[in-house]
Amino acid sequence: MIPSKNLTEHEIVALDGACNVSDGHARQPLTAGQQAIIDHLPELFREAKGVPLRRVEHEAHEAFFQALGQRAAPVCSGRILTTYSSSVAIDILGRCLAGTGATVALIHPTFDNIPDLLRSRGIRLIPFEEEAVVEGRLPAHLGLGDCVYATTPNNPTGQTLDAEQLSTMGLACRDRGCILALDTSFRGFDSRAQFDFYELLDDLGVDYVVIEDTGKVWPTLELKLGFMACSHTLDLPLQKAYTDVLLSASPVIMCLVREFSLDAAAGGFAELQKLIATNRHQLCQIVADSGITDADVGSRVSVARLRLPEQNATDIMGRLTKRDVHVLACGPLFWAEPAAGEQFVRVALARSPDTVDTAAHALRSAVVQAAQAA
Amino acid sequence: MIPSKNLTEHEIVALDGACNVSDGHARQPLTAGQQAIIDHLPELFREAKGVPLRRVEHEAHEAFFQALGQRAAPVCSGRILTTYSSSVAIDILGRCLAGTGATVALIHPTFDNIPDLLRSRGIRLIPFEEEAVVEGRLPAHLGLGDCVYATTPNNPTGQTLDAEQLSTMGLACRDRGCILALDTSFRGFDSRAQFDFYELLDDLGVDYVVIEDTGKVWPTLELKLGFMACSHTLDLPLQKAYTDVLLSASPVIMCLVREFSLDAAAGGFAELQKLIATNRHQLCQIVADSGITDADVGSRVSVARLRLPEQNATDIMGRLTKRDVHVLACGPLFWAEPAAGEQFVRVALARSPDTVDTAAHALRSAVVQAAQAA
Repeated sequence: MIPSKNLTEHEIVALDGACNVSDGHARQPLTAGQQAIIDHLPELFREAKGVPLRRVEHEAHEAFFQALGQRAAPVCSGRILTTYSSSVAIDILGRCLAGTGATVALIHPTFDNIPDLLRSRGIRLIPFEEEAVVEGRLPAHLGLGDCVYATTPNNPTGQTLDAEQLSTMGLACRDRGCILALDTSFRGFDSRAQFDFYELLDDLGVDYVVIEDTGKVWPTLELKLGFMACSHTLDLPLQKAYTDVLLSASPVIMCLVREFSLDAAAGGFAELQKLIATNRHQLCQIVADSGITDADVGSRVSVARLRLPEQNATDIMGRLTKRDVHVLACGPLFWAEPAAGEQFVRVALARSPDTVDTAAHALRSAVVQAAQAA
Repeated sequence: MIPSKNLTEHEIVALDGACNVSDGHARQPLTAGQQAIIDHLPELFREAKGVPLRRVEHEAHEAFFQALGQRAAPVCSGRILTTYSSSVAIDILGRCLAGTGATVALIHPTFDNIPDLLRSRGIRLIPFEEEAVVEGRLPAHLGLGDCVYATTPNNPTGQTLDAEQLSTMGLACRDRGCILALDTSFRGFDSRAQFDFYELLDDLGVDYVVIEDTGKVWPTLELKLGFMACSHTLDLPLQKAYTDVLLSASPVIMCLVREFSLDAAAGGFAELQKLIATNRHQLCQIVADSGITDADVGSRVSVARLRLPEQNATDIMGRLTKRDVHVLACGPLFWAEPAAGEQFVRVALARSPDTVDTAAHALRSAVVQAAQAA
């Protein structure tokens, strides 16, 4: 049985659960450095009130993109829009692509709100399998004005395009006259995704939109921003669609993002990556003897996709929900072929080690019980 | 000449202007009570981190709706969705209405992002003149499943439906099988809009969506929430569309909204209304001898629509922009007939008295100079 809810509806149920490893938002404890920033929120508010919005916005862009190795990002050019979240950015992009009648080749699998948001705009989607994405093999019928949408690192697999692969993809898009849309929300977890995308894409001369996100990496309780950066030749009315939704994001959150970015560049990202690696290792160790395996060895993102011994992810998710432990069955992530996701559950890793430990033991036990019941 | 930008694009230019009375966001100084809440942001963050999300969300709803007299609002029923902003709520509603093929009779004039967001979903709009709105005279061809969308108090006119008028409108919608959508973002400024909408609409048995907003009343630098409350019989997939955009709004902002609501109920709204009345009076006094008049005597909202002696609002706006003073020419507010807006400029009043004073003198001077140049 494939769940009829979307993933976020399941995640909402988990929000106040005893053990929530459902959503991919950052819920690990604040580090000492981050807590010190939070303790200064009143000062950040005062600063945000007193200086020009453009200044704090540029400072947030500068600090965030620098921390992620994106030195050629178009800071101060007017080509970075700051939104409430990456989902709002995706919807703005979708609206603009719908206006041109573009077909979108969308990476498969990926989080289901991306296909849902794009489809809600009436856009025709073609599934673009991960194996084809890394090789830059565009679907045959994609042409001028169409769009390739890839999440890198991908959610839930962690698959990450290296510079050569991104270059191959960019060239293929340029040669077909396609727009390359990249969702890099998870790149803070993986240094292999922190080579300079903007320099590479600008050199190729491909039209691009890159959607970045602060919400997946820092546990700021949804005080977050999405960014949408585009090439200077891109001919989509992003700014017009943006201004229908918002005048500006909060300058207080811009100041917060600047401070978290500086902290991340000064060691915060390394600390975060270590936490995720520890949690991933611990999770895989605990569940190993129940026949559960890591489906994406080498992944560094803040979610782990686990392969179950049976194709019963929905059943396992249901058993865990009864114990107030919340994971995601991966059906909806395989948005073009949900049955393919029944072999997998997704476990969030941006949590305290204790939470991951509890979830791992419960998952192991549920899989053993399901096998006995079968 | 009618401006080709939308209103928000003009407002963005004004954001860092020397004198910005362009956008309708709250930019007045914090009161002492509000500053004390801001000073406790770290404690609010800690609280938001430590308690269930549903609890702080319900507390925010309870405090906000109570402060505005909405005692029968469906708090704790699952029928209030909390969004990043009212615009995100409007877009979610638009997506759902597009899915049913509804026609929307939209109040005219009103802020242009409402028609733009709805049209971007492919919805057919019928202008619904304010005079017809107050009389509850629905357009003839509106029928089952269609929607009436009214902003009350309206932006920019301040027109506010009283209980009898809302009842007439609600009955008309019920009898035609139409959904009544109300945007009440400005009701904090006008006690005449604070009778209990939910009790009245529930008693009528009309299907409704009410969009509320914290962003217009409190100067929290875009730390704000939108709310979308609906009748229990409403058959639109709002929750599904919502979850494509967000998992939840920030619990920190929920705590902030709860505290600002309690402060507002304890005198903060009265203080705010006094400030707006003072600013409106001062503005009208200063510009009176140049032939500019208040177009909406009796309005209490945080924007003033002023009638110019000539139909030259775009010219006047341009003259003021050169002096780094930013008002809005009202063309785009008359979304179905932009030429009708050329007689009016809109001046924001949720500002310090000094800012309004500066703007008023500049406006007066620009109108006098334009008359001399003609």
